[in-house]
Amino acid sequence: MLMEGIEMTVEQAKQVMLEMFQKQQAIGYAGAIMHWDAATGAPKSAMPRRAKSMGFISGLRHEYFVNPEVEEAIGVLYDNRDQLTANEKREIELTKKNYEETSKIPKEEMQNYQMLLQKAEQSWEEARETDNFDMFAPHLEEIIETLKRFAGYRGFEGHPYNLYLDDFEEGMTMEKLDQFFDVVKERLVPLIHEINASDKKIRYDFMTQAIDVEAQKKFGERFLDIMKFDLERGMLKESAHPFTMGADLDDVRLTSRYFEDMFLSGWSSIAHEGGHGIYEQNNARELKESSLRGGTSSGIHESQSRIYENNFCRNRAFMDYFHPLLKEEFPGKFDDVTTEELYEGINLVRPSLIRVEADELTYPLHVLIRYEIELLLVNNEIQVSDLPRVWNEKMEQYLGVVPSNNAEGVLQDVHWSSGLFGYFPTYALGSAYAAQMYNKMTESFNVEEALKRGDFQEILDWLSDRVHKYGTTKTPDEISMIATDELLNPKYYCDYLETKYRGIYGLNK
Amino acid sequence: MLMEGIEMTVEQAKQVMLEMFQKQQAIGYAGAIMHWDAATGAPKSAMPRRAKSMGFISGLRHEYFVNPEVEEAIGVLYDNRDQLTANEKREIELTKKNYEETSKIPKEEMQNYQMLLQKAEQSWEEARETDNFDMFAPHLEEIIETLKRFAGYRGFEGHPYNLYLDDFEEGMTMEKLDQFFDVVKERLVPLIHEINASDKKIRYDFMTQAIDVEAQKKFGERFLDIMKFDLERGMLKESAHPFTMGADLDDVRLTSRYFEDMFLSGWSSIAHEGGHGIYEQNNARELKESSLRGGTSSGIHESQSRIYENNFCRNRAFMDYFHPLLKEEFPGKFDDVTTEELYEGINLVRPSLIRVEADELTYPLHVLIRYEIELLLVNNEIQVSDLPRVWNEKMEQYLGVVPSNNAEGVLQDVHWSSGLFGYFPTYALGSAYAAQMYNKMTESFNVEEALKRGDFQEILDWLSDRVHKYGTTKTPDEISMIATDELLNPKYYCDYLETKYRGIYGLNK
Repeated sequence: MLMEGIEMTVEQAKQVMLEMFQKQQAIGYAGAIMHWDAATGAPKSAMPRRAKSMGFISGLRHEYFVNPEVEEAIGVLYDNRDQLTANEKREIELTKKNYEETSKIPKEEMQNYQMLLQKAEQSWEEARETDNFDMFAPHLEEIIETLKRFAGYRGFEGHPYNLYLDDFEEGMTMEKLDQFFDVVKERLVPLIHEINASDKKIRYDFMTQAIDVEAQKKFGERFLDIMKFDLERGMLKESAHPFTMGADLDDVRLTSRYFEDMFLSGWSSIAHEGGHGIYEQNNARELKESSLRGGTSSGIHESQSRIYENNFCRNRAFMDYFHPLLKEEFPGKFDDVTTEELYEGINLVRPSLIRVEADELTYPLHVLIRYEIELLLVNNEIQVSDLPRVWNEKMEQYLGVVPSNNAEGVLQDVHWSSGLFGYFPTYALGSAYAAQMYNKMTESFNVEEALKRGDFQEILDWLSDRVHKYGTTKTPDEISMIATDELLNPKYYCDYLETKYRGIYGLNK
Repeated sequence: MLMEGIEMTVEQAKQVMLEMFQKQQAIGYAGAIMHWDAATGAPKSAMPRRAKSMGFISGLRHEYFVNPEVEEAIGVLYDNRDQLTANEKREIELTKKNYEETSKIPKEEMQNYQMLLQKAEQSWEEARETDNFDMFAPHLEEIIETLKRFAGYRGFEGHPYNLYLDDFEEGMTMEKLDQFFDVVKERLVPLIHEINASDKKIRYDFMTQAIDVEAQKKFGERFLDIMKFDLERGMLKESAHPFTMGADLDDVRLTSRYFEDMFLSGWSSIAHEGGHGIYEQNNARELKESSLRGGTSSGIHESQSRIYENNFCRNRAFMDYFHPLLKEEFPGKFDDVTTEELYEGINLVRPSLIRVEADELTYPLHVLIRYEIELLLVNNEIQVSDLPRVWNEKMEQYLGVVPSNNAEGVLQDVHWSSGLFGYFPTYALGSAYAAQMYNKMTESFNVEEALKRGDFQEILDWLSDRVHKYGTTKTPDEISMIATDELLNPKYYCDYLETKYRGIYGLNK
């Protein structure tokens, strides 16, 4: 600590920040590994000990961040931000914003919240396994109450939900999001109706045939390698809900989940998480030790997972490479299927219950349902106990299907048990960014030709150069401008889906 | 912090200690999970980040422990130890000893040492894979120098090696150990010579037949369940060097390693680590949050792994249960073997290169070699660069076999890369304690009858009641007295080995 009454110099302030970030990284890595361990096989009985440990670590992170020395350093650097490099300036702006919000939440409450999330996630898992929503409900109520209390501490303009949105998508507001969803609804809902009414027969039998789970896992690693995910600096495992964890530039981990009779599920999760992982792995190396490492927003992160999962890997051109690969990897399983049938099967549109298994076209409606429910909860228009009923009503309204149990319904996603309110909308934003980037990419080179050869190098270079390398040094809007020369525009997303699915279902434009 | 000049009350001191232990546990669990992660599959490229994180955590543990408040609390509790319960008294005595030693080592040096160990272990792995001792040597030199410097800080009576011994086996000295090894050498070396000269033919072909590794892993879990290791509160995975990690009373993890043509290796590691794990799992539940959880010494811990691995699972009586089990689990693999042949094959005596693969009889000579080498290093009678030569000479002298590379020689064990000097001898002590406990157990019930049925319940109850439940509340000598009514006596160990192996090899007493 410096002597009272003497202001820090810029150099001293930089040193304070460096040490703070180093401590955060050291302790943050430990937290990340415990999280990974919990998701990929730790004994259930380890939960109480882990919850204490995670809670303690969270308290430390708060303590290292929120203190007079760091506060002074932030002030000094912010006041002198014109002397800083662009990255330093961005870092101090993000840190100042973060500080102002975090410092308003008492350390002990944050620590208790982290312990609550540990317990809630465990409870969600059990509740989902046993279809027992009531077991999970009290935890969810406590999470929502805590987030509301936190919003009060942090302060907000307009609606508190804007605060949650901005946490995951810098600059996003309910107003912008409503406009986005209005376009999406206006263009996609009629298309889905047309498709539902179409008499096009899509062959699907080969998608539900039995494929050995161990063989699927093995193929998963090969596929990641094809996508240019670097398995030397990462790994693939199994968990209840697929996720990606970029614990370090050189430690990026993915999970998938496998079903013997649903090959598409495990494979598309791998393509999806692989896209996230590629983003994390291809930050500029100079960001390895920086707080600017990672993805700039959930929406931009999701654009990278979606562009690999949908725009590349479910592309008709890619099937020319993928079909022979499948035949080689799973002898006899894809021999009596045409490449066209494979393409259609992989892109079958069928309103269904599980978001992560949803087809590309109905997917945004799953997201819309969660967005609307979150708003109802935040506005106290419904209670947690109403959730199973409201969920089912909205599924019926938008998708015309109703889950027969909560495991296939309101309990299907991990997010709420992790306190991720305001996160779901970024899934739809990601798909829209992905379509916009893909469209722009075709101006640089022949993407379909590359996909036909299963060659992802040029794709990787294009995305790394415009998205990955920047980490969080640019805002989502800046990334959109750098990569596509315009801000987010749902037109590309809707155009892409219309062209693709009208093609598959033989509908006139 | 309390006000200066006013002494803490006993209650205040207890509160200070409780908070300190809670912090240690929280941060210690994080360290344990990172260690587990590193050993069971983390990408290699994660090492630098993990090393920083582990080093930081180690620094925190030091900081929480070594400070004026804890020092005062220890003083107050120690001075008033007659007011404490027996467990509280034991805890403060152990903690005081630990404090006096730890506080003498500067925090930064301890932190650097932890980072060194991270790097050394990674380097050892690579050196072993590539048979490149020179790559590992500088790390080992630095470890030895650090341990010597630490011994200087800590202070010791007699020989510095006594300090290392006492770290793992409370109360052990070179003098006692030399006496122990003298008896062992005197009685076992001639026996090994007799066996080497015997013309008894032992069938071994079925021990090297190909057995699918995945099937071995699956059997491993079933076998742990038979042994009464609780898989609900623990797990089994794979690592380069098998180990057990008791991260919590309800989170006890084991690893084994598997070879298709060496079934014995994976299985005996499971029986061995299972014994360690059973000890950790069966501490009294009241010790869950206590610093007195765990095993009281490495020797006593090893007695539990050895008693399961050798005294129970390589017992002739157990073969009556084990043989049908193997036939069921691995169809066709053990059908043309008699139970007697299985027993003899599992207990084949053959001087060999790898300690963890050694037979029960030549095993203590592997330990003796490491003990003698450690003394030579500590006494500066040899340098690290001499190790490959000295190793090979001693292998020739005691076992009559010489490794053709360092991976099968001086690089085979992880211990030195983890700074574990003074640890190896406890492996031999463990076997001796095991024989002494087994002998005593037969006075309580018919152990062989239980083994014939594959029933480990009575065994578990006996050991839990006399060893496991106590955690570290008793010294090794006290555990020996409680369990066997006498102190460690190598007679039981030598008697056991003589009877067993004279029987197998048809030699007269």
